[in-house]
Amino acid sequence: MPTTYVPINQPIGDGEDVIDTNRFTNIPETQNFDQFVTIDKIAEENRPLSVDSDREFLNSKYRHYREVIWDRAKTFITLSSTAIVIGCIAGFLQVFTETLVNWKTGHCQRNWLLNKSFCCNGVVNEVTSTSNLLLKRQEFECEAQGLWIAWKGHVSPFIIFMLLSVLFALISTLLVKYVAPMATGSGISEIKVWVSGFEYNKEFLGFLTLVIKSVALPLAISSGLSVGKEGPSVHYATCCGYLLTKWLLRDTLTYSSQYEYITAASGAGVAVAFGAPIGGVLFGLEEIASANRFNSSTLWKSYYVALVAITTLKYIDPFRNGRVILFNVTYDRDWKVQEIPIFIALGIFGGLYGKYISKWNINFIHFRKMYLSSWPVQEVLFLATLTALISYFNEFLKLDMTESMGILFHECVKNDNTSTFSHRLCQLDENTHAFEFLKIFTSLCFATVIRALLVVVSYGARVPAGIFVPSMAVGATFGRAVSLLVERFISGPSVITPGAYAFLGAAATLSGITNLTLTVVVIMFELTGAFMYIIPLMIVVAITRIILSTSGISGGIADQMIMVNGFPYLEDEQDEEEEETLEKYTAEQLMSSKLITINETIYLSELESLLYDSASEYSVHGFPITKDEDKFEKEKRCIGYVLKRHLASKIMMQSVNSTKAQTTLVYFNKSNEELGHRENCIGFKDIMNESPISVKKAVPVTLLFRMFKELGCKTIIVEESGILKGLVTAKDILRFKRIKYREVHGAKFTYNEALDRRCWSVIHFIIKRFTTNRNGNVI
Amino acid sequence: MPTTYVPINQPIGDGEDVIDTNRFTNIPETQNFDQFVTIDKIAEENRPLSVDSDREFLNSKYRHYREVIWDRAKTFITLSSTAIVIGCIAGFLQVFTETLVNWKTGHCQRNWLLNKSFCCNGVVNEVTSTSNLLLKRQEFECEAQGLWIAWKGHVSPFIIFMLLSVLFALISTLLVKYVAPMATGSGISEIKVWVSGFEYNKEFLGFLTLVIKSVALPLAISSGLSVGKEGPSVHYATCCGYLLTKWLLRDTLTYSSQYEYITAASGAGVAVAFGAPIGGVLFGLEEIASANRFNSSTLWKSYYVALVAITTLKYIDPFRNGRVILFNVTYDRDWKVQEIPIFIALGIFGGLYGKYISKWNINFIHFRKMYLSSWPVQEVLFLATLTALISYFNEFLKLDMTESMGILFHECVKNDNTSTFSHRLCQLDENTHAFEFLKIFTSLCFATVIRALLVVVSYGARVPAGIFVPSMAVGATFGRAVSLLVERFISGPSVITPGAYAFLGAAATLSGITNLTLTVVVIMFELTGAFMYIIPLMIVVAITRIILSTSGISGGIADQMIMVNGFPYLEDEQDEEEEETLEKYTAEQLMSSKLITINETIYLSELESLLYDSASEYSVHGFPITKDEDKFEKEKRCIGYVLKRHLASKIMMQSVNSTKAQTTLVYFNKSNEELGHRENCIGFKDIMNESPISVKKAVPVTLLFRMFKELGCKTIIVEESGILKGLVTAKDILRFKRIKYREVHGAKFTYNEALDRRCWSVIHFIIKRFTTNRNGNVI
Repeated sequence: MPTTYVPINQPIGDGEDVIDTNRFTNIPETQNFDQFVTIDKIAEENRPLSVDSDREFLNSKYRHYREVIWDRAKTFITLSSTAIVIGCIAGFLQVFTETLVNWKTGHCQRNWLLNKSFCCNGVVNEVTSTSNLLLKRQEFECEAQGLWIAWKGHVSPFIIFMLLSVLFALISTLLVKYVAPMATGSGISEIKVWVSGFEYNKEFLGFLTLVIKSVALPLAISSGLSVGKEGPSVHYATCCGYLLTKWLLRDTLTYSSQYEYITAASGAGVAVAFGAPIGGVLFGLEEIASANRFNSSTLWKSYYVALVAITTLKYIDPFRNGRVILFNVTYDRDWKVQEIPIFIALGIFGGLYGKYISKWNINFIHFRKMYLSSWPVQEVLFLATLTALISYFNEFLKLDMTESMGILFHECVKNDNTSTFSHRLCQLDENTHAFEFLKIFTSLCFATVIRALLVVVSYGARVPAGIFVPSMAVGATFGRAVSLLVERFISGPSVITPGAYAFLGAAATLSGITNLTLTVVVIMFELTGAFMYIIPLMIVVAITRIILSTSGISGGIADQMIMVNGFPYLEDEQDEEEEETLEKYTAEQLMSSKLITINETIYLSELESLLYDSASEYSVHGFPITKDEDKFEKEKRCIGYVLKRHLASKIMMQSVNSTKAQTTLVYFNKSNEELGHRENCIGFKDIMNESPISVKKAVPVTLLFRMFKELGCKTIIVEESGILKGLVTAKDILRFKRIKYREVHGAKFTYNEALDRRCWSVIHFIIKRFTTNRNGNVI
Repeated sequence: MPTTYVPINQPIGDGEDVIDTNRFTNIPETQNFDQFVTIDKIAEENRPLSVDSDREFLNSKYRHYREVIWDRAKTFITLSSTAIVIGCIAGFLQVFTETLVNWKTGHCQRNWLLNKSFCCNGVVNEVTSTSNLLLKRQEFECEAQGLWIAWKGHVSPFIIFMLLSVLFALISTLLVKYVAPMATGSGISEIKVWVSGFEYNKEFLGFLTLVIKSVALPLAISSGLSVGKEGPSVHYATCCGYLLTKWLLRDTLTYSSQYEYITAASGAGVAVAFGAPIGGVLFGLEEIASANRFNSSTLWKSYYVALVAITTLKYIDPFRNGRVILFNVTYDRDWKVQEIPIFIALGIFGGLYGKYISKWNINFIHFRKMYLSSWPVQEVLFLATLTALISYFNEFLKLDMTESMGILFHECVKNDNTSTFSHRLCQLDENTHAFEFLKIFTSLCFATVIRALLVVVSYGARVPAGIFVPSMAVGATFGRAVSLLVERFISGPSVITPGAYAFLGAAATLSGITNLTLTVVVIMFELTGAFMYIIPLMIVVAITRIILSTSGISGGIADQMIMVNGFPYLEDEQDEEEEETLEKYTAEQLMSSKLITINETIYLSELESLLYDSASEYSVHGFPITKDEDKFEKEKRCIGYVLKRHLASKIMMQSVNSTKAQTTLVYFNKSNEELGHRENCIGFKDIMNESPISVKKAVPVTLLFRMFKELGCKTIIVEESGILKGLVTAKDILRFKRIKYREVHGAKFTYNEALDRRCWSVIHFIIKRFTTNRNGNVI
């Protein structure tokens, strides 16, 4: 539903003409505002979410006794159950993905359902060294002993590989399209917005989305598409957190504690995906909860959930080698100071990757929305076939991304006969022929470029898709290519550690695409344990960050997607110009002065009619309560504010039939006790917020924005010496800010419409050529 | 200056009698409030700190050109220079400490000024393995070749050891007492309060404190006192950050950006002290800036400063082995699930350690304040002698704490002939005689108990003193003792890794004393690189945290010291009861209604008299501006608020002589342009805050507290339909909150006065016995 943007023609006068309520034209940066419900963190402070009747709790005689334990232990039980569920899903997902990937190249002789790790589990020789190397030898022997049979022959392996890839992609996209549309893409942006106080459609964290995402994700990854599992892991983990807290803590859960549980669960998603608990906790902090105030109880919950989830994953032991760490390299050669310029070069590559890949990806998403939006399934099929075709012929693209990174990170030990296919990478030394060197170097560069382009076109397709691991794979192949050059032309053999360059390249691109610093450094540590390289790693990530901030990109791909999709999000960074432009405007110019107010005392029927027909005319979410004396005055004094949601649920509870409603009086300023036994009148004081935040007319918009951001309130009343003048909502100020930004700086994302049209015409021509047979009718 | 606490006798009426301005009695929890100046984060938002005249910047013709570069590069230059200075100080400090410690046991034959690392630098054998082991062999050969000569003979080593220990302690405490009294203790609490918006006395971060702390710290550590260098490192690093930013960014530095630089510098302090850059950044986040809003620019600055500081330290290479990591252990045996109960036991020990040591330490500080406050130097001397005497005879206490932890962490390799004194710890196996086993076990337990008690009495003495490393040393000895038991009675040899138990024990006690989770886990990693033990480490720290939170301790030692010293700090965690008690009170009961207000237009002379005599009567820091029309009314309308500090500096700039002041009119609501050429009148509008935060009378105190905490404003105006009713300041609400807490829960820290008195009488008796000779007059 591409919304057209109509520039505001009449200039906003400084102070005379007040902008009326639906006065903000819809611009792309605010197109999806209405799908979100703003949560008033102050009014909802310690008010439980669902005000349903108190559920009787196994009303046996131990009831009181059980309630006391439940009260103390409920946090632990909720956190532990969330973590265990996340750990189990991660374990299942890991095993299922590996099985699918292994099927593409062979099957287990004993029982075709088993994947390589399970199938070759018996082949364990006595040296229990834990390095990844041995795993390779295991596979080698496993195949030698005929336990695992690879598909034989010339053509059939290729056909099976292609067929299975396309089949997996098809099932994945059909599941997402028809069963749970919310399960597409990564989901980090929506979670980030949700936790900052704008609740998305409940379906997004629903049970169906959880199941489909957990099933469609392994299928998407095993189909060979250049998609990662980190973003989707955050999504399914957050679903677990959301569903379990709503079910277990139903009657005592408040919004602020729900956000803590969601942030903790999202962190655990990354922890189990990477096998990096500390990195997961930091991800929850630096990416998800960056709009909230840092508090130690969120940190403690994230820490606990990440720990229990990782321990569960270790217990399930998906890799069959008792370890959670994916790569576990042992670099023992220290780095030299002369290598710093190369680290800087890797950092620059990471920065440029982050900048251009996200730019092209956003342009492609715009192109997809304009032209391809009606054929999502066909698009995914085409992508899967294209990717399978290209990657079959390149050794770095053919392997599953995690496996290929395993090879690229591992440094070549002198007598390296242990790795099964004694990788060509390690056979290189100074006297290898230039042609041999060139072959590997081009294959690495080819893998880097192709995968980067595939990432641009695959991220955003109608399948669960993350962008972290593919970016790391691009960085790893680039890093290893650089190390080949350095070893060949500059340093000579066994001076530098080639594996470390791949490791640093992967960190550069990961930091480039996410624009995170601390989280990336810690994740890369926990992935590899390469402790010697703490300083080079920090240098690379620092350079990447500098490149990004000098080219004006402040957020990672998740932040940019928030702007592209027009989600409401109170960014914290404003550059100086933006502040100056906003300072000129005051609350008076921003407030909506045509308000629907409720009197202190009002008939129930009036209230019901106001509630239900107002849904049509204004999308109003709350009503100021005004004094009775000013009922017919133009200038009213405000004594409180009530949210429509609370009003509706309170009225529902009254269960008063419509005739009686005409006569029952509702008092907003007297509580039930004060009204006592007077019949047919009800006190609504408990749902009224008696002290809404209020400001004067002359307050500058910058201070207003800061109050919305820091206090998390939903509406601010504008008063002048006690008289109610108007009302500003969080979404109003965001709309105003983004419209102003567009006026001063132009659109944040500019699209090359001409290029898009030309591409579309080419694609359209090709499709027409294929689908219509000779005599012109569509097959 | 022990302040007596007078309980408020008359109960605070609910609403009738309003509490007047200096109406809060002084209780210990608020005793030091007046030493702090509250910073209004909103009013000072983008107002530079010092409003001095713009400094002419090398006013040559390239001036404009240079200003442009300076503008873009100033952040980098400031951050880099801060980091390099911190790195250099850390390098100097490390070398200086090692030199002093080595002097206590011997001297370098070539040049007595060199310490062991520098002296034995030449003795480098070709195998460039980097494990700590080799360093030991280096020392062994160094002594064999006569490069390093230990003090010979029976008695003289002991005397030199004692003499030097006491001498170093004496110089250290004299420097602190007479040159820079602010340099005592650790300083983390004051920095934490400073960054949260309450500025301490400028001397605390002054140049003198920086120099003395950097010199007195190595002296204190080398004197053998059970003090660590982490707390003081945070302090001297913050001094660097503060001084350099004030000097370099003088005209553009605002308060909020100064806090960012200070947090970054404090993080770098821990980074260089532990050799743990990521741990340092997390420390800045979790401990120092925990009251502020998390923002990525603080994270980025901390990251950059920690990186540059560590690289500088590595370049200086204080350990002469090219590495920054202190311990670098290589545990290759994986942990078993059956060991989890023991990890839980270690966690419990850490929790109990944290709980009791901080409790006893606070009691001892109270005892010191009551009785010993007039003899700080003598106290330190006594402590130094006592510690030197005890630790000379225990092998784990005698060594410098870092060195002894190095031995305890390192796991015993089978043919371990490399370590110089082939430590007895590694000679143990199943057939060692019970007596031999008992000897080592008791020496470990002795070291644990003694050092714990020494920590209680030394932390708080008049020397620069941290508590992190001593706590880790206690944990390390305890962990190793447990591993001896396990190996002897449960698992038998070469099943568990004894070194890992010491490593986990140290993590438990560090987390127990600081109550930090993520920071401790990451620091322990960076210290040792022991990646295999990620999950056991997290389990231990989790158990410690659970023990602390169930026994009601919410903050670490730094937070508790804030309460003990009565510093103002807006804690974030309030337990439910506290919320309920506060909810009953409203802003009306809390506000001070006897206000000094300023009219819109006022004579300069009146303003000056108001400013200077008001300093005597009320300690008022700001004035509401009221409308002219209400000049003689009782009910005034407020149009703004001005800070006394800005008023004073603006008046100073006017340089109007006293007679002319009588006739010059000051306008607060008209700016200079509006007044234009009308002579002898000045516009003060630019320093007036036109939209101060205002609330209604009925606002509950909980919401008020939240506004102070989230918005960081200094004063909130209380208005009722436009009429100025009163004013609440940040300190008022903190005083009110702590008084209420004391009324409901009693004092946070209760002291056993009787016990103190008895101890004092015993000490007094001993001192009298020593100092008076036979015929009763004092020597």
